[in-house]
Amino acid sequence: MTTRLAFLDLLADYGTRARRQALSYVPFDASEYLVEPASDYLHRGGKGLRPALCLAACEAFGGRLDAALPTAAAIELFHTAFLVHDDVEDDSQLRRGAPTLHRLHGSALAINAGDGLAFFALAALRDNERTLGWRTASRIWSEFDLMAGHTVEGQAMELGWRRDGRTDLTADDYLDLIIKKTCWYTTILPLRVGTVIAAGTADLAAMVRFGFFLGAAFQIRDDILNLTGDPDAYGKERLGDLREGKRTLMLLHLLAAAAPDDRRWLETFLSEPDDAREAQAERVYDMMQDYGSVGFADQFARGIADLAVVAFDHAFADVPDSDARRFIRHLVAYMVERDR
Amino acid sequence: MTTRLAFLDLLADYGTRARRQALSYVPFDASEYLVEPASDYLHRGGKGLRPALCLAACEAFGGRLDAALPTAAAIELFHTAFLVHDDVEDDSQLRRGAPTLHRLHGSALAINAGDGLAFFALAALRDNERTLGWRTASRIWSEFDLMAGHTVEGQAMELGWRRDGRTDLTADDYLDLIIKKTCWYTTILPLRVGTVIAAGTADLAAMVRFGFFLGAAFQIRDDILNLTGDPDAYGKERLGDLREGKRTLMLLHLLAAAAPDDRRWLETFLSEPDDAREAQAERVYDMMQDYGSVGFADQFARGIADLAVVAFDHAFADVPDSDARRFIRHLVAYMVERDR
Repeated sequence: MTTRLAFLDLLADYGTRARRQALSYVPFDASEYLVEPASDYLHRGGKGLRPALCLAACEAFGGRLDAALPTAAAIELFHTAFLVHDDVEDDSQLRRGAPTLHRLHGSALAINAGDGLAFFALAALRDNERTLGWRTASRIWSEFDLMAGHTVEGQAMELGWRRDGRTDLTADDYLDLIIKKTCWYTTILPLRVGTVIAAGTADLAAMVRFGFFLGAAFQIRDDILNLTGDPDAYGKERLGDLREGKRTLMLLHLLAAAAPDDRRWLETFLSEPDDAREAQAERVYDMMQDYGSVGFADQFARGIADLAVVAFDHAFADVPDSDARRFIRHLVAYMVERDR
Repeated sequence: MTTRLAFLDLLADYGTRARRQALSYVPFDASEYLVEPASDYLHRGGKGLRPALCLAACEAFGGRLDAALPTAAAIELFHTAFLVHDDVEDDSQLRRGAPTLHRLHGSALAINAGDGLAFFALAALRDNERTLGWRTASRIWSEFDLMAGHTVEGQAMELGWRRDGRTDLTADDYLDLIIKKTCWYTTILPLRVGTVIAAGTADLAAMVRFGFFLGAAFQIRDDILNLTGDPDAYGKERLGDLREGKRTLMLLHLLAAAAPDDRRWLETFLSEPDDAREAQAERVYDMMQDYGSVGFADQFARGIADLAVVAFDHAFADVPDSDARRFIRHLVAYMVERDR
């Protein structure tokens, strides 16, 4: 497993297994008003990066893939729950190449389906008691508890910054945000619980460092794709982040770099409602190109990816070579190069 | 504890303790954008019926109140999470005598705060491992898991019925709905987990029967209060259920009892958007009075309360007299007589 193709094959395989397991926790005999919206995003696919990282970490540390499947499913279910609520909160239009859940079913049924998905994740975690014993199950539960607290706080910060029209933020604020909002559930938790299931003796603090750099590279790339990506591959509406006034690294760079007149115009832009912002999104994108904000963010992401490699080498120093180990190592490059 | 006053004192005491414990799981060092909305409804008070029932069941079966406090807090936190999301889903205006959370902070921060409250409930449940041991903690967790599945399904059914303009529903459909949507988390789970914490050997199926009758009486009374109650005591906007087109027992009775012309008018009313319905709400309320729908529902609730007394006597047959036992017995009458 050294080629990009082999990496993508293994990613698809991990993702498919986790998604199949995740769907097994949706109670298909329940009301269609719950089952249909709750299972929709899972049926649409998705990269499956988060459960793949959990499964690969478990295998790399010598664990059996099956042992981590319920936990990987819980990760995918929580992620899907967050996506559903995030789409309502941002009034996003597209997800995985199709209309968002609340566009299809209304906000009420979508919010409720998101709640359901989070609860199904708990059911998946309960399976761990039976298969891994209560000590490990409890340990994993505590990791999810910690992660959930970080995630809702990060989400609250992002939403609050937007609501209050904050323009006094720095790259440090951005990194503080995304470690909470993105990294904890995207990379840190999957790495930590995969390791716990396999071995229980790894250096979990090293996983926080590696997971932070890996997740930050992922999030910055995600924000760049929203500007420059091909919507057909990416599956979300282009420039949606600008419409929402999302405080990305590019936007913070632009605010700091812009000439006084441009900055004043941007501050007005950010204080307007979503509809008004949508009409000006291309102009902001052009400004980001002119001021080098996109290039800055891309370089920043690559710098963080370099740090991720160093952190990986430390965290996986005692782990023998395997497909799973090489998969995780390859993920670093994938994070900053992916186009979907 | 035989008088109504003593009952209300004990209810207030149970409620205060549970709320204080619930607030202790809100991470007050986290971002204000999370902490403020997440703790708001808890600070507003509320009846605290659900945690009180858990604490009283534990005490009635010989357990210590302290042993049930984290679980009672988890019940109140889950309840608050449901309230927050329910208010967004229904676009309700008032809760506990003040504007709803999404009216104060916007839907996005409100949805996220609801997510946070559900996660804080999990943290409360994790405390049980330390204080009650993993077997009992795991047992309680499984009860919450079961309850959460029922609750989101019931909520989905209600929202789906409204979205699809369903008018072909009977009292049986209504009861099937509220056992899922209301009873499981309001009465059945609190009774069952309170019992499990105290004794672990009670007849839990008997608690499902008692909890169903008790919770159904509660929900029907709640729906009546939305029509006839004093908004100052009740704390929600009057006739909000009619604006939302909520399928209450009164509405289903009215649809079945109405003359053909009135029924056709009602079907049009139910197919209209919330704003249009709001303008006609008083007229529908008058029709409910004319057709005896409110009286029917009140009699129905009292009949169910009678069944609750029979079910109580069975479920608590071997439980010696105590303040806590009398409190639960008194709850039956309270459910159908309360004005808030």
